[in-house]
Amino acid sequence: MNYTDNNIETSYKKILESYLNTGSEHVLYEAQQFTRTLLEHKTSPEELVSLHRSIMDQLYPELPDDIQASFDFLLEAMMGYGMAYREHQILRDRQQ
Amino acid sequence: MNYTDNNIETSYKKILESYLNTGSEHVLYEAQQFTRTLLEHKTSPEELVSLHRSIMDQLYPELPDDIQASFDFLLEAMMGYGMAYREHQILRDRQQ
Repeated sequence: MNYTDNNIETSYKKILESYLNTGSEHVLYEAQQFTRTLLEHKTSPEELVSLHRSIMDQLYPELPDDIQASFDFLLEAMMGYGMAYREHQILRDRQQ
Repeated sequence: MNYTDNNIETSYKKILESYLNTGSEHVLYEAQQFTRTLLEHKTSPEELVSLHRSIMDQLYPELPDDIQASFDFLLEAMMGYGMAYREHQILRDRQQ
C-alpha cells in the first residue's frame, strides 16, 4: 500500500483500529511497514506519538484525562529523540 | 539530578506521577531533561514507549485492555525509529 501525506492519519487510524479489534500479530507487522512510510515522510518520533494520541482521542472520545495527559508527557519525553533523529538525517545526508 | 540504570524506572514514574497530579509545565521541562539521560544511557525510543507503558500499568492497574494494546501498537510502530536511532549512533561514532 502506498501512503501520501494526506492519508497518513487515516491509514494509522485504520491499522490501529484493526489491531485493537483483532489483536492480530499480522497487523503489528503492518504497523512496522507503516513506520517505514513515516520515516520516508520525515515524520519525527514525537509526531508519531502526537498522531497516536490524536487517533486515540478519535477512537475513544471518553478517554480519561489522565491517559490523555500521559500521552502529552510521553510526547514531551520523546522530543529529545526527535532532535537526535534530525541530527541523524543531517549526518546521513553529509555522508551521501 | 543524576540517574543510574537502576533508578531510571523509579525516576520516570516519579516525574510522570508528578505531571499527572499537577499538570505543571515545569514538570514537562523535567521530562525533557530526563530524556537527555535516557539518550546518554542509549535507551531506544521503543524502550521509552515500553517504559511508559510499564509505568502506566503500575499507576493504573485497571487500565482498559484497549489502552494497553494501543501502547503495544505504538511500541511496534516506534521500532523503525529505534533502528534509525542506532544507525545514527554508528554514524556519529564514525565521525568522531
